[in-house]
Amino acid sequence: MGDLNIGLIGSGRIGQVHAGSIADTKGANLVWICDPFVEGAEKLAAEFGGKVTADPEDVFASGDVDVIVVASPTPTHLDMIDRAIDAGIHVLCEKPIDLDIEKVEKLRDKANAANVHIAIGFNRRFDPQFESIQRRVAAGEAGKLEQLVILSRDPGPAPRAYIAVSGGIFRDMTIHDFDMARYFVPDIVDVYAAGTNVFSDDIKAENDFDSVSVMMRGRNGEIIVIVNSRHSAYGYDQRLEAFGDKAMFHAHNVSPTTVQKYDAAGTGQAEPFIDAFLVRYAVSYRRELALFLDGIRDGKNYNPTFDDGRAALILADAATESARTGVSVSVDGKL
Amino acid sequence: MGDLNIGLIGSGRIGQVHAGSIADTKGANLVWICDPFVEGAEKLAAEFGGKVTADPEDVFASGDVDVIVVASPTPTHLDMIDRAIDAGIHVLCEKPIDLDIEKVEKLRDKANAANVHIAIGFNRRFDPQFESIQRRVAAGEAGKLEQLVILSRDPGPAPRAYIAVSGGIFRDMTIHDFDMARYFVPDIVDVYAAGTNVFSDDIKAENDFDSVSVMMRGRNGEIIVIVNSRHSAYGYDQRLEAFGDKAMFHAHNVSPTTVQKYDAAGTGQAEPFIDAFLVRYAVSYRRELALFLDGIRDGKNYNPTFDDGRAALILADAATESARTGVSVSVDGKL
Amino acid sequence: MGDLNIGLIGSGRIGQVHAGSIADTKGANLVWICDPFVEGAEKLAAEFGGKVTADPEDVFASGDVDVIVVASPTPTHLDMIDRAIDAGIHVLCEKPIDLDIEKVEKLRDKANAANVHIAIGFNRRFDPQFESIQRRVAAGEAGKLEQLVILSRDPGPAPRAYIAVSGGIFRDMTIHDFDMARYFVPDIVDVYAAGTNVFSDDIKAENDFDSVSVMMRGRNGEIIVIVNSRHSAYGYDQRLEAFGDKAMFHAHNVSPTTVQKYDAAGTGQAEPFIDAFLVRYAVSYRRELALFLDGIRDGKNYNPTFDDGRAALILADAATESARTGVSVSVDGKL
Amino acid sequence: MGDLNIGLIGSGRIGQVHAGSIADTKGANLVWICDPFVEGAEKLAAEFGGKVTADPEDVFASGDVDVIVVASPTPTHLDMIDRAIDAGIHVLCEKPIDLDIEKVEKLRDKANAANVHIAIGFNRRFDPQFESIQRRVAAGEAGKLEQLVILSRDPGPAPRAYIAVSGGIFRDMTIHDFDMARYFVPDIVDVYAAGTNVFSDDIKAENDFDSVSVMMRGRNGEIIVIVNSRHSAYGYDQRLEAFGDKAMFHAHNVSPTTVQKYDAAGTGQAEPFIDAFLVRYAVSYRRELALFLDGIRDGKNYNPTFDDGRAALILADAATESARTGVSVSVDGKL
Repeated sequence: MGDLNIGLIGSGRIGQVHAGSIADTKGANLVWICDPFVEGAEKLAAEFGGKVTADPEDVFASGDVDVIVVASPTPTHLDMIDRAIDAGIHVLCEKPIDLDIEKVEKLRDKANAANVHIAIGFNRRFDPQFESIQRRVAAGEAGKLEQLVILSRDPGPAPRAYIAVSGGIFRDMTIHDFDMARYFVPDIVDVYAAGTNVFSDDIKAENDFDSVSVMMRGRNGEIIVIVNSRHSAYGYDQRLEAFGDKAMFHAHNVSPTTVQKYDAAGTGQAEPFIDAFLVRYAVSYRRELALFLDGIRDGKNYNPTFDDGRAALILADAATESARTGVSVSVDGKL
Repeated sequence: MGDLNIGLIGSGRIGQVHAGSIADTKGANLVWICDPFVEGAEKLAAEFGGKVTADPEDVFASGDVDVIVVASPTPTHLDMIDRAIDAGIHVLCEKPIDLDIEKVEKLRDKANAANVHIAIGFNRRFDPQFESIQRRVAAGEAGKLEQLVILSRDPGPAPRAYIAVSGGIFRDMTIHDFDMARYFVPDIVDVYAAGTNVFSDDIKAENDFDSVSVMMRGRNGEIIVIVNSRHSAYGYDQRLEAFGDKAMFHAHNVSPTTVQKYDAAGTGQAEPFIDAFLVRYAVSYRRELALFLDGIRDGKNYNPTFDDGRAALILADAATESARTGVSVSVDGKL
Repeated sequence: MGDLNIGLIGSGRIGQVHAGSIADTKGANLVWICDPFVEGAEKLAAEFGGKVTADPEDVFASGDVDVIVVASPTPTHLDMIDRAIDAGIHVLCEKPIDLDIEKVEKLRDKANAANVHIAIGFNRRFDPQFESIQRRVAAGEAGKLEQLVILSRDPGPAPRAYIAVSGGIFRDMTIHDFDMARYFVPDIVDVYAAGTNVFSDDIKAENDFDSVSVMMRGRNGEIIVIVNSRHSAYGYDQRLEAFGDKAMFHAHNVSPTTVQKYDAAGTGQAEPFIDAFLVRYAVSYRRELALFLDGIRDGKNYNPTFDDGRAALILADAATESARTGVSVSVDGKL
Repeated sequence: MGDLNIGLIGSGRIGQVHAGSIADTKGANLVWICDPFVEGAEKLAAEFGGKVTADPEDVFASGDVDVIVVASPTPTHLDMIDRAIDAGIHVLCEKPIDLDIEKVEKLRDKANAANVHIAIGFNRRFDPQFESIQRRVAAGEAGKLEQLVILSRDPGPAPRAYIAVSGGIFRDMTIHDFDMARYFVPDIVDVYAAGTNVFSDDIKAENDFDSVSVMMRGRNGEIIVIVNSRHSAYGYDQRLEAFGDKAMFHAHNVSPTTVQKYDAAGTGQAEPFIDAFLVRYAVSYRRELALFLDGIRDGKNYNPTFDDGRAALILADAATESARTGVSVSVDGKL
């Protein structure tokens, strides 16, 4: 199969990342950029090429699109997937799949029966650190996986307006960690979560947490711990530790260089971590797209599926409930 | 004040550590070693000196003892403390204070009103790593403390006979981490815990867990996470991370040397961690004793108190209950 | 200024790197690929575009080339530079500038008076690690620079045929380290070198060394140490340490991920270092080219000059002589 | 064999270290402390016991001494060794053995024929880091040793008065590194050294260097590099790297704790290194003594010998000459 023509839905921050990924990926042509905020689409097209429209119908009806990449606001995701299925267009859709599990369930059968490839953009599975550990664990190098610890702290909180429509920290931020948990332990049986408000009046005013932790158990006794904060003085903090009976693997943060400073104040000080998530995860976004296109060509699937997107949302919902009630929530058999 | 004469109660593994600490501590004389297993006491006395007896009454009645160090089995602890108070003898007692909170409560008022110094042997507060972090956090170097992550994995499980009378992993092993949590966040308000059985049939047969995690919240919104395992392929794993709004401090494990190996298999491989807890924490045991004796001389307290021992047990009880019910347990106002 | 059209001279291993850099660089068009081994040029053109020729004259005479990148064999370098000057074409030429300092001296005045930009491809100056340290040292963060230690070990030796025409390890391999030394300490006054043969019969048969060390002094008392080996069991080893009176900076090797393994064999084992120099230095090759093009557009110079290439060769010659005689060689005033 | 009675010659800084080592060593009794500055000896005796004298003859003639530890000024060392041999007393003597190789040569045959154990105090061989690497290299874990890099920087310079009588940096400071080099590569064939003056007017005024580097070659082609500075902004810097054809081992500095700080200024900053050499090398001083006493009991030798002390001085002399002439000095067959 030759080149794949791609329509990009959404020209915001994540849309720009995907435009860059498409430009860097051999065999991928950016043919459409769609955004109701047409100026955004035009600006992106000026840099990366592609036709511009405010109406996604132009993309679906164009006849020259093989794949859409959905980076528009969350409430549009399910509709885009639905229409892509109808148009026979493969779709890579950003997370979360939606904030409402009921809506997700309604599309589920159709999505799973679709003749097109559908992937959800949990790009962190393609981060070289996490992917390396997952593969080594899957290859048995750690023995039996017993504990998984995910530390994930954002450099700083999103604006209040974003928080207000985000669906809460579990559905917005932790959802990446829920998918990461399932990357290692797909079959999770219960979820406990607790949240507090320690630094942001804005987040508190939105009845959301700025500091949370989640504890889950897997089918085979795996214990999974997630620790999140909406800020971090030392930059983007993204670590993971997989503990098995034969070995433990630990993924540290990524620094811009390997340089360390030694002076009277202290020793071995490295430069601050790569801070912007678009830079920190630039490689994983590119690999996510490349593997999605490979999958289309190979007739295989290398990416998180619609059901993976659904499962992460179920875990986020369970965490949201648990954090309210103080009771662990069973998801046994629901994922 | 001059030298302090010490009676050691118990000549088992921990008793031997304390005998070594006493020998290494200036101004400390080991004058009695008491153990119903007299051969153990005699063997220790042959190495470190001191009179030997099977009956603690000989120690209390001797008139030549200023301090007892209690390293006998847990069920004897409260009685030893009680009798030391009556005898006007200072007492440094190993953890846990008891397995039954009711018994602890009964002695509480008397202990707090006693004219002698009473300390509970949570020696890890004196580990150079953890103490350094606690002091820097207390000095404000981390800003406001928001999250505390304690990773604590034993090299291997205790024998089944020990597990059977241990009171369960939360009261036996995690209790150190409960005290460590309170070293940083004294005022804890709720506790959630989950446990699983992943590797030990013996532990399972005793209705105990071999892998657990605990999540707690502090009065000021602090989130505290503890991860425990009864085994670890790479040796004794004792790490701690204190996350504040200005800085994060991380304590790594201690290696016997700083040597790293680089070869075709990989790079930067250090020697296995210090494995035996008596070696890993040798320094903290010595500092624990030295500070206890300093406190007696200074009329001050530098050690965890009877109430600290009680608080750790309350947290362990709450965790035990939570792990059974799946519901978080409030300890608000109970510590 | 708009796009710059580039002619690539040489389609071998380094030529391929440059072709990739050109393709990745905005405002750079690969218009010619020249190699007497036309199949190599054609293969590269098939991937990256550009016209193909066996004769560099086609490139010089084409009228559509702004820049040539010279990645042909060393004996052709000076001639390519000379002809580029005559043709009014900017030239980025691979190291070494030549193996014969007399030839270099003959072109020197013309090169320095030329109206075109001439840069020598000491790409390691643009490695993020080394560049970061150099900038921090230049900014005074280390105080006065007193000692510089460069550890540079290749994964494995080049083939004997390559060694035979390489000019010897100092001119072929250490020359990068000589330029790195001058990146930090431009004014070097003397050179001592010693070499041995410890593993390669091929290299010994060519009267070359497989293990060498160089010690130099700078005008202001700086001590510079270089340690080289033609092989390394643990992969490409490229470290640097800059010691000043206020701070020391250390650049470690680059690993493919931040993952560390902990098991019974040892702790903290990272994956093998990035091994292939084309991957290890991919970023520096790209920045080298981008900065060269920026310099052309800005009318400034950001790259090592013809005289830097000459200086590195003079140091290499001095080291070659010193290793033969056991006497340090003065280069005072000769760089 | 039972306890060994020890006479300590010298109560200065190093004498105090040895007094502490003797006190900590089972089977070692400190019976005499000798110093013409009697107050120093008395102060030390008050802490560690032992009879006091200003005259070493009292020690030699006492009849109750099995071992002397010589920590008096360098010019007394050979005489103390000589008299100990005559008195049939074992002797552990601080480095350097003397500043004058002629005097050393005169005692050599007698020392080597003596019926007593004679050891020179190159304690760094017993540092856990360096010893671990040496043993692993000796066991073949690195394959064939090809390169050895020793980085050794003092926290700050000694007083000018000390520098004036020190014999120069190579005989005073680098001599430890010369012995360390011979710990790994006993048979060294040539020596080159260079020195500069970069920060200390006092040291310059004494015609000594404050920054030096040494390059040596071993019989089997080993390249040995030593880098020294008389000061270091980040504390005592003591590293070593042993490079073989199968593996490389690297010994980092020792930090007081494993704690790392992460904040806006940077990441992974450890506490300053252990600074005072008496603390940094406390363990090696204790092991040095313990092994010396073990050797006496076992009839074996575990410590650097008189000839090791002589060899280190020969290397220091060669370096001193080379740094003056710029020519490498052969020591082939002289060690």
